[in-house]
Amino acid sequence: MRRSKQEITDSTEIQNIISRARTARLGINREGAPYVLPMNFGFADNTFYFHCADSGLKLDLLQADPRVCIEIDESSELQTGEVSNPCKWGVNYRSVIAIGTAEILTDIDLKRTALKIIISQFAGNNAPEMPEASIKATTVFRVKSENLTAKHSS
Amino acid sequence: MRRSKQEITDSTEIQNIISRARTARLGINREGAPYVLPMNFGFADNTFYFHCADSGLKLDLLQADPRVCIEIDESSELQTGEVSNPCKWGVNYRSVIAIGTAEILTDIDLKRTALKIIISQFAGNNAPEMPEASIKATTVFRVKSENLTAKHSS
Repeated sequence: MRRSKQEITDSTEIQNIISRARTARLGINREGAPYVLPMNFGFADNTFYFHCADSGLKLDLLQADPRVCIEIDESSELQTGEVSNPCKWGVNYRSVIAIGTAEILTDIDLKRTALKIIISQFAGNNAPEMPEASIKATTVFRVKSENLTAKHSS
Repeated sequence: MRRSKQEITDSTEIQNIISRARTARLGINREGAPYVLPMNFGFADNTFYFHCADSGLKLDLLQADPRVCIEIDESSELQTGEVSNPCKWGVNYRSVIAIGTAEILTDIDLKRTALKIIISQFAGNNAPEMPEASIKATTVFRVKSENLTAKHSS
């Protein structure tokens, strides 16, 4: 009951939360234990796009286990509710949580498109074209959302 | 080399990032796959404190596997760097990542102290005392940080 009341089902509202976000947190598996890190991202057609360096811990972990969880949130100011009972106080938030599998892109055209989507997430659609060498040198991966839920805490 | 340049080692700066944050993301294990969710939190003496409802998915997962990752970040505005190469654009951030094990608190005095720490994270130290019944009805857990690292992306 409580869960369904908190759920956001309006797809425009979910899209707006994602559009406003500049950072997503990527949950990955680190030798059986959870590991979370902040990432710039892009989103289009129910798919999240990320880029990272050509080598490093993140890539190693994703290659070992591509299952990921993506979290995005936005917080309100402090809500004090019942003043006499600070257990009811809190910071309201809206959040989006998506489950999926990371796929590293090797096709140059897919990579170019993905990088445009990532850049447009934070810079709008006015960014210049990227140099071919930069596209080749960047690792890009996508996560098609298999399960995307959104909720608000109030 | 790149990693060490990005690392924040100054403990006051790390403390300040944590103090400014209102939301931490908790990475937990969900049947072998990563799961991430936003939480209000408190922090004192290298220990993170959280509260949640007395039952639910989060608690079930933590009881099945108490290993967690805690992530906190703050973002800057868009940095355009080299204007001609948007691959170099991005949103700079500072982040703190802590690894530890969730311990559910049952002692009423520990719970009271933990809830004070959580409330003071977002409300300062002026919150009134919490009713005993609310303390009893709330599940509180702590995560002593076994490994806390901080970095900036620039």
